[in-house]
Amino acid sequence: MTSDRSDTMGVRPMAEAARHAQRRFGAMEGRARTAALHRLAALLREREGDILAANAQDLAEAARDGLDEGLRQRLTLSPRKLHALIDGVLQLAADDDPVGRTLSTTELEPGLILSRVTSPLGVLLIVFESRPDAVIQIGSLALRTGNAVLLKGGREALHSNRILVGCLREALTDAGAPADAVAGIEGRAAVAELLGLDTLIDLVIPRGSGEMVRSIQAQTRIPVLGHAEGVCHLFLDREADPAMAAHVVVDAKCDYPAACNALETLLVHRDFLPRLPPIGAALRARGVALRADAESLPYLEGAGAIPALEPDDWGREFGDLTLAVRTVEDVHAAVAHIHAYGSGHTEAILTQNPEVGDLFLSAVDAASVFLNASTRFADGYRYGLGAEVGISTGRIHARGPVGAEGLLTTRWLLRGSGQAASDFGPGGRSFTHRAIR
Amino acid sequence: MTSDRSDTMGVRPMAEAARHAQRRFGAMEGRARTAALHRLAALLREREGDILAANAQDLAEAARDGLDEGLRQRLTLSPRKLHALIDGVLQLAADDDPVGRTLSTTELEPGLILSRVTSPLGVLLIVFESRPDAVIQIGSLALRTGNAVLLKGGREALHSNRILVGCLREALTDAGAPADAVAGIEGRAAVAELLGLDTLIDLVIPRGSGEMVRSIQAQTRIPVLGHAEGVCHLFLDREADPAMAAHVVVDAKCDYPAACNALETLLVHRDFLPRLPPIGAALRARGVALRADAESLPYLEGAGAIPALEPDDWGREFGDLTLAVRTVEDVHAAVAHIHAYGSGHTEAILTQNPEVGDLFLSAVDAASVFLNASTRFADGYRYGLGAEVGISTGRIHARGPVGAEGLLTTRWLLRGSGQAASDFGPGGRSFTHRAIR
Repeated sequence: MTSDRSDTMGVRPMAEAARHAQRRFGAMEGRARTAALHRLAALLREREGDILAANAQDLAEAARDGLDEGLRQRLTLSPRKLHALIDGVLQLAADDDPVGRTLSTTELEPGLILSRVTSPLGVLLIVFESRPDAVIQIGSLALRTGNAVLLKGGREALHSNRILVGCLREALTDAGAPADAVAGIEGRAAVAELLGLDTLIDLVIPRGSGEMVRSIQAQTRIPVLGHAEGVCHLFLDREADPAMAAHVVVDAKCDYPAACNALETLLVHRDFLPRLPPIGAALRARGVALRADAESLPYLEGAGAIPALEPDDWGREFGDLTLAVRTVEDVHAAVAHIHAYGSGHTEAILTQNPEVGDLFLSAVDAASVFLNASTRFADGYRYGLGAEVGISTGRIHARGPVGAEGLLTTRWLLRGSGQAASDFGPGGRSFTHRAIR
Repeated sequence: MTSDRSDTMGVRPMAEAARHAQRRFGAMEGRARTAALHRLAALLREREGDILAANAQDLAEAARDGLDEGLRQRLTLSPRKLHALIDGVLQLAADDDPVGRTLSTTELEPGLILSRVTSPLGVLLIVFESRPDAVIQIGSLALRTGNAVLLKGGREALHSNRILVGCLREALTDAGAPADAVAGIEGRAAVAELLGLDTLIDLVIPRGSGEMVRSIQAQTRIPVLGHAEGVCHLFLDREADPAMAAHVVVDAKCDYPAACNALETLLVHRDFLPRLPPIGAALRARGVALRADAESLPYLEGAGAIPALEPDDWGREFGDLTLAVRTVEDVHAAVAHIHAYGSGHTEAILTQNPEVGDLFLSAVDAASVFLNASTRFADGYRYGLGAEVGISTGRIHARGPVGAEGLLTTRWLLRGSGQAASDFGPGGRSFTHRAIR
């Protein structure tokens, strides 16, 4: 099978081949990467029948193995999902080449020009669960950005992943680019070995449960982009608008409770408590189970609230229709709670007081901080980034929803006319350091 | 001693105090950070006598302990060095506030505005050797960028470091900012413990030998900014200008041979070999010991070259006036050698052929890639970045010479008017995703 080489090739040679292929691929002109994306879209269209058949085989095995419904849903590639994937690939093909863009240019002296240009990050290792669409979403982003990508999917999506990785490799070959810039990985042992190759792999992107992310972080010295947890808070200030609060809180909790940007703990200003009952009622109507601290409990008993476990329910990622509620003294106490229990993902305040809003926006140390909007907006598509690689709660390199930009680094290019550093300095020439753009 | 708390306070509480202090300090208005920098400059001026006396005590102990001359030179704080440090602090105080700058603004729909703003990175751990000037250089950069910084210097600079850390802490207090945003660390055991605190420390910056950098990288999961090695190459293309070659090669090798951006291996196009002897003579005149491959050796015997050890001398960081020389077939072979043996620091080509130059600039995967200029230009000051935190050979976050920008991350701020994510999508409203700036 050409799409998977971890059986026929050792893991280190595969990563070395990816490094070599990436350097060639990343240095090619942008039109080669564009051609590979067009060819990929064409291949996915031509092979729709085979791809759906491979996926049906995975689904049949999943049914036989008794995989749960949610997992099987994520595993399913419908014609509609496939067409959306193809549209996404064509959108990337239509985008400007993100590689080799000049970010700044400085004249060090006339005839000595420094520029900073975008470059591919290098070799990416993606570890994901169930969703075979990730192969195309992340694989096509890697093609657009000139990166190499090693794709390790779950065993349950084996047949789907193989045929999709095969399409990516064939698209590269057809565009005159090295196929080894994409490779499929199979088997857990291969991943453990790859996580040790910190000179050959530049970034690991895990897409899956918090447990999986933590396990990968613990196993490797390679930078990991992503988040293990999304513990998001929303603070209802004393000057929050009650109608807005009901609308936004219901959305943040109920729109997709399993998402990392869903609300886990509602913080309520003491003075807002009397206006809490209708919000509790709206949440109850959507099936939310409330766990309230002693001070807010009387206002939420009508909504079926039970006492929260303190402090166990603070900072807890319920991931379902459970919501913790805690009363705080003021915005400072809300920020302190968030810093003590948050995961740095997305934090929001509702207030009609612009000063309190600005204070919250400047004080909260998190990837995304919102005023009068639902935490659910923290998402690459909603932010307008196009394809999303993941959401990072780390502070290094990329933070929050990450698009193509997160798969790029920079290089410094200096074009001179024979200058030596010792030509400059005391008694010699001076730098002009003139910004050109 | 207020400047050092690792004796009186556990290491984890100190890192926790730094995290808290940083959040307060980073959320203050820029003028508080500017005031702290002005106060720091004033304190350094007021205490010049005490600082020089503390440094003299370190130097006396270094002499008693028989520290080598180079180390003692780096340890010395002359009045001139101190005044240059003060000028640097005042320059930073005059700079615009880099925190809270808006990098982009997008309208998601009218009344729902997303912006991306610069933010401090968080808590930095700096591990450095001998040079007490690093306390002020890096400490003042941390102040400018709203970061907290834990400073671990060498035992040999104990008294100098203590008084300088004391000045930083006092400057913070006097500016109404929390002193715990700066702390001095003493003792190796404290460093090992700090390297384990990956939820409290966001970035480690080691400033010292390659061995020290590698040892830190091996001990921690916290991102490390820096480089363990600087193995820089210069390729003399067949169309290199011979006079330029002599000038640039001598500079790259001899200007400061111990620097990470000094030349280690000269790659020579086969067709250029006949023009090599005068370059060899110029290098010999500066005391360079040449180690040449079999093909270039006849052209360099007049310059006292001896045979290179192949492949041991390729990719070797001599760090002194030794230079390896290897003949290559063409620019592609030069690039292949660089990818096989380079450390991704700085690579250069000399050629009068613009196509070959462009090919080299686009193909070489390194932090800095130069055409017709000495590798020695790879430096934050020469690049016009102002103060330099270090030079990174990593691809993540910052690459090449790193200035204040490398100590910043971003946050996404969303200002709405009560929007829920479920208001958008099929049957609902649409995103405008209009770039505002």
